[in-house]
Amino acid sequence: MTPRRIETLALPGIPLVQPGDDLSDLILAALDRTDVTLRRDDVIVVAQKIVSKAEGRYATLSDVAPSAEAEALGAEVDKDPRLVELILGESSRVVRHRPGLLIVEHRLGFVLANAGIDASNVEPANGAERVLLLPEDPDRSCRRLRDAIATATGTAPAVIINDSIGRAWRHGTVGTAIGVAGLRSLLDLRGEKDLFGRALRVSTVGLADELAAAASVVQGEGAEGTPVALIRGFAPEAEDGSVGELLRGENEDLFR
Amino acid sequence: MTPRRIETLALPGIPLVQPGDDLSDLILAALDRTDVTLRRDDVIVVAQKIVSKAEGRYATLSDVAPSAEAEALGAEVDKDPRLVELILGESSRVVRHRPGLLIVEHRLGFVLANAGIDASNVEPANGAERVLLLPEDPDRSCRRLRDAIATATGTAPAVIINDSIGRAWRHGTVGTAIGVAGLRSLLDLRGEKDLFGRALRVSTVGLADELAAAASVVQGEGAEGTPVALIRGFAPEAEDGSVGELLRGENEDLFR
Repeated sequence: MTPRRIETLALPGIPLVQPGDDLSDLILAALDRTDVTLRRDDVIVVAQKIVSKAEGRYATLSDVAPSAEAEALGAEVDKDPRLVELILGESSRVVRHRPGLLIVEHRLGFVLANAGIDASNVEPANGAERVLLLPEDPDRSCRRLRDAIATATGTAPAVIINDSIGRAWRHGTVGTAIGVAGLRSLLDLRGEKDLFGRALRVSTVGLADELAAAASVVQGEGAEGTPVALIRGFAPEAEDGSVGELLRGENEDLFR
Repeated sequence: MTPRRIETLALPGIPLVQPGDDLSDLILAALDRTDVTLRRDDVIVVAQKIVSKAEGRYATLSDVAPSAEAEALGAEVDKDPRLVELILGESSRVVRHRPGLLIVEHRLGFVLANAGIDASNVEPANGAERVLLLPEDPDRSCRRLRDAIATATGTAPAVIINDSIGRAWRHGTVGTAIGVAGLRSLLDLRGEKDLFGRALRVSTVGLADELAAAASVVQGEGAEGTPVALIRGFAPEAEDGSVGELLRGENEDLFR
């Protein structure tokens, strides 16, 4: 079940994505150009940014009227109170903050800076500054993309949406899954044995996150224009997965 | 600089490692069997477990006399006080604990459960239960391995030691770098521009961790017997890296 070899490639020629664009069309065209015929052991990894763009998840800062709470918190963290208003609207709570840093629990359960909202690689509209929110339901976005690709090609690849997310104790972001379809996100090894017949120390593996990180190596951070990666060689054992498998419940979380 | 394609493969036929074994010999033999000639854009990723074994980082539980502190903490976290004694000896402080869980800051700066000490895939010696500690200086282990491979082949690959480490807010471990040689661990994008000429949101990327995660997909968790992965297609821009680049200092850490 553990693959012996995976290949991870950035699909070339994905254009700037516009609201309403059908990502499956763009991805199928890129696969065509690359002469890749989809296989059952392919995983398509799509950067959050283009999913949010296709879904039109823009907000225009000049349209936002910050609350008193957003004004106060904006002053504390040294961020635009209109941006803070958007962040709070996407979040269930503030986890930590200090000047320059605002870490929240996103309504979808992810713990991350600024609720994943940002402006990089977002084109201004008529000169107005816009930001992009995370997709409304990234698992659903993955399922739709997987279904559309399956309808067009007869092959249903696993699909992951990834984003570059920071860690509690380490510098640097890593590509991390925020949506999943067609694979189990968490590999459950409970009951498996080690080389000497004893229980393994590691009981669960965040496999969708490992694949999301591998994809990030070839996607880069945006200026490369390669937001879609294909991972070949990983055949999921079970297809009924969601990103929720990866999220700790409140009662399991010692660091909120 | 962002690669367009990387290939990640598990090297077959690495035998059970014994104290004193020369890992470079084992890896070179595995490369030979795989018909792989090392290239400048190869990264060798080695699981912590076999580095610790080669370096003889065993402890025998029956030899450990737990302190009163280890006895008390062991009762609180429901772990063998001798194991807790070893964990405390490898740690600079306890970060969080509760029954079944002991998260510490390792003397090397990593925040992880049980100071990375465990017994899975460790063979008992004369019936005595043994555990394995992290390598004494994983960056040094990486440099030595890199130098030995360079001497034998004329090519100096980047080398990473990875371990399966848990996360604050997510279930499941992910392959994470604990030692690095021959590449910069942290990709610094400060000053880089996005597609529209603005500063990128993401300023640093934990590249060694992304590579460590990619390798983990093919390494598995031990029973596969494939603790070494080769990542081909990643040519580091700078070679003077260390795992310390990835570690937050105390004053930057909001979650200890």
